[in-house]
Amino acid sequence: MTIDLNSDLSESFGAWKMGDDAAMLDVVSSANIACGFHAGDPAGILRTLRAADERGVAIGAHVGYRDLAGFGRRNMDPSSEELIGDVIYQIGALKGLATAARTRITYVKPHGALYNTISFDKRQAGDVIAAILAVDPSLVLVALAGSPLIEQARASGLSVVAEAFADRAYTAEGKLVSRREAGAVLHDPDLVAQRMLRLVKEGVVEAIDGKTAKVDAQTICVHGDNPDAVAIAVRLRALLEASGLVIRPFTDLAKG
Amino acid sequence: MTIDLNSDLSESFGAWKMGDDAAMLDVVSSANIACGFHAGDPAGILRTLRAADERGVAIGAHVGYRDLAGFGRRNMDPSSEELIGDVIYQIGALKGLATAARTRITYVKPHGALYNTISFDKRQAGDVIAAILAVDPSLVLVALAGSPLIEQARASGLSVVAEAFADRAYTAEGKLVSRREAGAVLHDPDLVAQRMLRLVKEGVVEAIDGKTAKVDAQTICVHGDNPDAVAIAVRLRALLEASGLVIRPFTDLAKG
Amino acid sequence: MTIDLNSDLSESFGAWKMGDDAAMLDVVSSANIACGFHAGDPAGILRTLRAADERGVAIGAHVGYRDLAGFGRRNMDPSSEELIGDVIYQIGALKGLATAARTRITYVKPHGALYNTISFDKRQAGDVIAAILAVDPSLVLVALAGSPLIEQARASGLSVVAEAFADRAYTAEGKLVSRREAGAVLHDPDLVAQRMLRLVKEGVVEAIDGKTAKVDAQTICVHGDNPDAVAIAVRLRALLEASGLVIRPFTDLAKG
Amino acid sequence: MTIDLNSDLSESFGAWKMGDDAAMLDVVSSANIACGFHAGDPAGILRTLRAADERGVAIGAHVGYRDLAGFGRRNMDPSSEELIGDVIYQIGALKGLATAARTRITYVKPHGALYNTISFDKRQAGDVIAAILAVDPSLVLVALAGSPLIEQARASGLSVVAEAFADRAYTAEGKLVSRREAGAVLHDPDLVAQRMLRLVKEGVVEAIDGKTAKVDAQTICVHGDNPDAVAIAVRLRALLEASGLVIRPFTDLAKG
Repeated sequence: MTIDLNSDLSESFGAWKMGDDAAMLDVVSSANIACGFHAGDPAGILRTLRAADERGVAIGAHVGYRDLAGFGRRNMDPSSEELIGDVIYQIGALKGLATAARTRITYVKPHGALYNTISFDKRQAGDVIAAILAVDPSLVLVALAGSPLIEQARASGLSVVAEAFADRAYTAEGKLVSRREAGAVLHDPDLVAQRMLRLVKEGVVEAIDGKTAKVDAQTICVHGDNPDAVAIAVRLRALLEASGLVIRPFTDLAKG
Repeated sequence: MTIDLNSDLSESFGAWKMGDDAAMLDVVSSANIACGFHAGDPAGILRTLRAADERGVAIGAHVGYRDLAGFGRRNMDPSSEELIGDVIYQIGALKGLATAARTRITYVKPHGALYNTISFDKRQAGDVIAAILAVDPSLVLVALAGSPLIEQARASGLSVVAEAFADRAYTAEGKLVSRREAGAVLHDPDLVAQRMLRLVKEGVVEAIDGKTAKVDAQTICVHGDNPDAVAIAVRLRALLEASGLVIRPFTDLAKG
Repeated sequence: MTIDLNSDLSESFGAWKMGDDAAMLDVVSSANIACGFHAGDPAGILRTLRAADERGVAIGAHVGYRDLAGFGRRNMDPSSEELIGDVIYQIGALKGLATAARTRITYVKPHGALYNTISFDKRQAGDVIAAILAVDPSLVLVALAGSPLIEQARASGLSVVAEAFADRAYTAEGKLVSRREAGAVLHDPDLVAQRMLRLVKEGVVEAIDGKTAKVDAQTICVHGDNPDAVAIAVRLRALLEASGLVIRPFTDLAKG
Repeated sequence: MTIDLNSDLSESFGAWKMGDDAAMLDVVSSANIACGFHAGDPAGILRTLRAADERGVAIGAHVGYRDLAGFGRRNMDPSSEELIGDVIYQIGALKGLATAARTRITYVKPHGALYNTISFDKRQAGDVIAAILAVDPSLVLVALAGSPLIEQARASGLSVVAEAFADRAYTAEGKLVSRREAGAVLHDPDLVAQRMLRLVKEGVVEAIDGKTAKVDAQTICVHGDNPDAVAIAVRLRALLEASGLVIRPFTDLAKG
């Protein structure tokens, strides 16, 4: 039995550092690498790509809105032509850097506001799907578990992997509790680890109202932007491995 | 007998238009496409790539310094790590867009201050060469005719093509007359055309002091950023073709 | 009887030119000057400020979202802290440039998507109002005629001037017809001029359905981003003046 | 006897944090506030301005080259028109934010590569001086002790204050030892504090060759970008105060 752990990496920019990429590369099996539009500069991305490749961590393009000042977390409404172009550009840039690092990218995970928007907005979702198909249809799309994006992307011919969030509460319907609500974000490493172990083994988590929510996910997102987040990720990996699970890139599954 | 004409294209950005790409794509055989750092936005680049491909115009990456406000015309001193990363990123981004446009890039021509700097600065030249080798060693580098960059790039294993400038005066040593000097830029379409015809046929141009300067070039740069520039380019192509020359991408020559 | 004509100016950026500022400064009485976030670079803004001041044209801060690639035309949702900071920053920057040009700014007109959003979105409207009050409460806010922004700003203590658009169709309720609908934008210089003359004299325009719409406006926006737009603006000014109206900055009215 | 301590603050940008502004505001008497071109976003600058004002710390504009990706540390050659415009723009923006924070700026200290360049390059120095004179001639310029900039600025009518660097070695001629040389940067808090005490009391420091170097400075730059730097600054202030010196903004001296 295997599961994939992914995290957002290479989010430093120029003189500004963010996150502990080295620590997280020892925890995750898939690295979502910033592509320069919301975070990430080419020299830093190249370093992260080499470090990921050395550890056998799979590499995905963490594409975002063109918004450095807002870190890609602000909603925007680019035209289809703009969004398609921006996504292709970012994937292409990361592919170039990956080639230079003698590795390659295998998936795409949109970032921040773009991730949230395309989970439910068919127009922008269609743009992102079109961009991936145009530049490399073999790339797998990581999409929010339970979101309509999953069906839309599959219907368009993309491979899709569903994602759960380790530190987030779920509703009984298997949806994320909004960050604006109390209890939306979990901080207890043991609780997080136990919940994700159950998710992998049984396909369910305890919802915020105490009911049991079905969450069908092949990859789990963990954060590494502060020491507490790294500690949660480390604890999660330890429990999963101690329980007999193999942490392994979801993209390996397709291979065999 | 063949010669290549190249021009800088896709230099619009967002709401700002620059140059008459459609007109120039009917004149040139090679299109230097901006990659987003000094000019060019993804959606516009995609349109230009499609238009170039339809006309059989070869496509090159017109990489520049990260300086939109200065249009890549200001000298900068990025570190080697930064410059290598920035060049790989830009080439990768353009490759991605070219794939989406069902075409491909075959060469790299640095832009503006970067072009001028690497013609003579070995450190930055080495960075650009290293970047091209890392991302795609089959890409040809377009370099200033007579510059030390040509030997440096060849010694590193890159294919190089030397470039002349249609509207520029030359010294007796075959170097460009600095733009700060009177007479550095030529404006007479007939004079420009006659000079370039001689350059192609005899490998020489009349220098600013009346002597004969040797200029060994396989591609000629023409401009299209204003109607006068387009007129010069059109006149040049007409005279070259009327004189029996074939205008053809330099990258075709390698093919046979 | 007087009326103010305003236009968006200094929208060039670096090497990219936009609009014919010199021509428009001979037509308008108020210049909305870009502040660098959606368009405008400091050196160009300084030139426009000097030219506006020479002609006695009033100067306003044309503040926008931080989105050069989208020219400030894309909806965004900055936090209140971000939006307040961004608006103060832009007004301050323009004030500094105006001081250097030995002139001063007298009003604020938000640009593009920010203009549209705050016409109806109370939260972002409140942020823009708070920013103006914090940096200079003597600045007048230019707001869409008929929008709730007018009352909101006045209730907060700002002076407000209502704006009509010369080349736009109106509904019977005095609202702009959406650009997505046929007939939303007018192109006939004579028709535009006649409509605006009526608006100034009678406070009404013929609505798109043939009815009469009340539009209470103290300033009329004209465009100058292409030769046709300039021609409409020139024709409008000619008719208004021939009809005995004085074209004069709305900010002069307050002076008496 | 008084001395001023200054530090570069508000160098965070969007989601990226840099330095411990709160800690440094308890140490310094003058805060060089980033203006958005090399670092600093409006919302963050506003917070820092308020915090500086609460503590009675003087505020200066830390203007830099337009180079976020390079943090203003890369040499650039903007034209005079560009550099003058960029400096006015940044000072104006900070003045606007300072007004909103109910405080004001009293000096200008250029940042990074711009600081280094204008210490010796008369053309760019003249541009920065012209910009300050144009926007607010009452602003004091902080310049490298011993640099020709001091005389140039004074001859142009600007007030100038000379600056020493607490953690840098000096040559016997009173110049900074280049960072490329061994021993250029000092790390021992006690040594740094003792050296600066002597500088304030005697106007000299021990040079790297053991000789005594004259350094005439009215403000001392301390860093706060990492915990070690903060510790050095804290130690320095403690020793200076224990030795009977008053830490006080240099701009207070002019007042009386």
